[in-house]
Amino acid sequence: MKPVTVKGTRDFSPLQMRRRQYIFETISRVYRRHGYQPIETPAMETLSSLMGKYGEEGDKLLFKILNSGDFMSKASDVLVGEDMQDSGRLSRALLPKLSEKGLRYDLTVPFARFVVQHQGELSMPFKRYQIQPVWRADRPQKGRYREFYQCDADVVGSDSLLNEAELVQMIDEVFAALGIRVQVRINNRKVLFGIAQTAGCPEKMTDITVAIDKWDKIGEEGVREELASRGIGAGVVRKLLPVLHLQGDAVQKARELREYLKESPVGLKGVDELETIFSLARQMDVQADCQLDLTLARGLNYYTGAIFEVKALDVPMGSICGGGRYDDLTGLFGLKGVSGVGISFGADRIYDVLNDLELYPESLQSGTQVLFVNFGEKEQAWTFAPAAALRREGVCVEIYPSAAKLQKQFSYADNLHVPFVALIGEKEHESGVIVVKDMKTGEQKVVRPEALLAAVMPR
Amino acid sequence: MKPVTVKGTRDFSPLQMRRRQYIFETISRVYRRHGYQPIETPAMETLSSLMGKYGEEGDKLLFKILNSGDFMSKASDVLVGEDMQDSGRLSRALLPKLSEKGLRYDLTVPFARFVVQHQGELSMPFKRYQIQPVWRADRPQKGRYREFYQCDADVVGSDSLLNEAELVQMIDEVFAALGIRVQVRINNRKVLFGIAQTAGCPEKMTDITVAIDKWDKIGEEGVREELASRGIGAGVVRKLLPVLHLQGDAVQKARELREYLKESPVGLKGVDELETIFSLARQMDVQADCQLDLTLARGLNYYTGAIFEVKALDVPMGSICGGGRYDDLTGLFGLKGVSGVGISFGADRIYDVLNDLELYPESLQSGTQVLFVNFGEKEQAWTFAPAAALRREGVCVEIYPSAAKLQKQFSYADNLHVPFVALIGEKEHESGVIVVKDMKTGEQKVVRPEALLAAVMPR
Repeated sequence: MKPVTVKGTRDFSPLQMRRRQYIFETISRVYRRHGYQPIETPAMETLSSLMGKYGEEGDKLLFKILNSGDFMSKASDVLVGEDMQDSGRLSRALLPKLSEKGLRYDLTVPFARFVVQHQGELSMPFKRYQIQPVWRADRPQKGRYREFYQCDADVVGSDSLLNEAELVQMIDEVFAALGIRVQVRINNRKVLFGIAQTAGCPEKMTDITVAIDKWDKIGEEGVREELASRGIGAGVVRKLLPVLHLQGDAVQKARELREYLKESPVGLKGVDELETIFSLARQMDVQADCQLDLTLARGLNYYTGAIFEVKALDVPMGSICGGGRYDDLTGLFGLKGVSGVGISFGADRIYDVLNDLELYPESLQSGTQVLFVNFGEKEQAWTFAPAAALRREGVCVEIYPSAAKLQKQFSYADNLHVPFVALIGEKEHESGVIVVKDMKTGEQKVVRPEALLAAVMPR
Repeated sequence: MKPVTVKGTRDFSPLQMRRRQYIFETISRVYRRHGYQPIETPAMETLSSLMGKYGEEGDKLLFKILNSGDFMSKASDVLVGEDMQDSGRLSRALLPKLSEKGLRYDLTVPFARFVVQHQGELSMPFKRYQIQPVWRADRPQKGRYREFYQCDADVVGSDSLLNEAELVQMIDEVFAALGIRVQVRINNRKVLFGIAQTAGCPEKMTDITVAIDKWDKIGEEGVREELASRGIGAGVVRKLLPVLHLQGDAVQKARELREYLKESPVGLKGVDELETIFSLARQMDVQADCQLDLTLARGLNYYTGAIFEVKALDVPMGSICGGGRYDDLTGLFGLKGVSGVGISFGADRIYDVLNDLELYPESLQSGTQVLFVNFGEKEQAWTFAPAAALRREGVCVEIYPSAAKLQKQFSYADNLHVPFVALIGEKEHESGVIVVKDMKTGEQKVVRPEALLAAVMPR
């Protein structure tokens, strides 16, 4: 049997794992320091929780679990009288009979389900983070996988804009810790609605939003054509375009927007929100470049206020973090009036950015800091005490498991990028010393056991 | 829509998560310190990788993923001429057409697949650990779930018994760190074979093993009956029973076993191995009570040498850790001659043991160490700098997101078990001080910003 991974999924090697754990740990440390608390939800959700939440396309991309045992027991009747050659029709008719569970598609819907199910036990506002894999039956391509991790933080039960500002602060802290220079683009759905309203067709907000979202890719002329193709008249387009050409920093843009949107109370509310978020972020000493970007729309329909997107400045790469405010996510599960706001880091893209910029700490190269050479049954026993002493100090230590040829043991250390090899032969044992070889410089030291720790500390 | 979790699966609350992370982190820290390296494999494996590895019963317990899209497209022909009312037959006939992937059932088979698939990139011996959920369509019952984590460490490509001894040492370190007193029971499959051979029916080793495995539960009389019911004659039983009554410590038992097994070279090899492992564990200063237990058999057929099982001494609970040596696991995927040995910690049971014995550190009660009260827009800005300063020192800090009533903010802190609440009102701001309230003692202190960190450190 040929060993293969399922299409679109990946094994992670030790080096990849250490790098991924470094990313996850950096993100979750920032989350924890801001009072976000960890939760986990099951990989499987009922299909009734999942279906209809991600659009028709999303429903198709759900991985569905076949019912256990005799899965046809509820399905036989459906088949009677069906044309057995019309497989598409059969699939649609059989699906609800064969499957009741699916793999989660994101962490947002399970989180909404969690909040509603456990509302009695939760203190509002509830700040949670969640770092778990999600699954999508998407067509695999470069950088797109069928199994990937999401790293979400959300707060529900508070409509204070301090939350939005704190999320920007957290984005700033995560990328500062990782050493990635970023631009944080911020917009507001209310402003987008206000713009559509001011341009004279509020009912076309979605079309306008979709077109504006492509500004970066297709430019002004493209957006004009896109709008026209969506049945938006030249008059509207004319009213719309100036606002996309606003110049200056967030303060200036907000001032001009306020003028432009003066007939739209919703739009003006959006401008208020943007000004507050930018002002709070300044007070919080956010270092990243924050821009008010009216071309930012984000596809997800459940956003109702602020929307965020983060791009790396030094690598051409899509968004590496995004999020926004949603006012009725838990409504899907019957709990109305709970506003929330959240962000999600794209761990796979961040992984690639760190790779491209060679920003991983050197220490991630190796799991083991010291390898004790094994000279034989008698000699290996001499390594037990010093190895245990190092481990008690948190050092990762291996004893080579057998008395293989020295060359083999050293090449094992080399392959694993172990920085130090320690040797205790007959002579060293008699003198009560240990030889420590620095594998990078080739330098050898003879140390007493009490000096071993200092001799093998990371350079 | 009523929010529900899938049967047999669980949400984990923040408190449960912190406790689980404490367990996982304790285990993985020990793994890392012994040079075991992290890997992860996908949740889904091909059904051809999974089927046939866990017995017929196991195949039924695999969660199978419905093929994407028009899943009936390969199945229509199968249905032609079938009796639509015989759903069991339909299910069996359709399964291979509808599903090609399943959720992993354990971490051992994916690991074997990983080793074979990546053999070119791995340095042997390869020491890996893996902490991930697995899924089994078992009937849910108390303490048994359809989704649960396994925490495995294995080394492949080395038959040195130093590995077995090191695993015992790691078991010892994990439970010492968690504060759980344990007994480590050790046995050897070669000894079990030797016993069956000596008793005169080596071909009945599995039956004898299964019967012996029940010794703890059904006693001598029960084992006699069990053996008889498996067609094992009274003469064999008579030859068998004395060996189960061996008394004394591992050294004594091994000595007597050596005498008993003197006609079985395989059995004697097993005794050699046991003696070496016990001797190495002593040299490594293992503190846990280690017993040579001939009634320990463990069900898994792939074990060929040492087998381990760990029980908590102070709580009646099944095995909380187990493992053993297997000589041909990668053979399933076409790579022969790679011996391995590993252990697996049962995180769910360890969770329950720590709960029962109230061994969780107090610090896990709360995620947030300090909550800053929010007195309003102007006042909240005064909290930004001291909050950021604490976070830079690794303290988890929240600022209440809105100027709610003081009572509401304090009861939020109470509900989350936040140990310290900090207040900066007009008066404090003017004097350049911060009021810190210890929520447990009720004591209030007035501190200058530079003394804040010391005032909120865990007691």
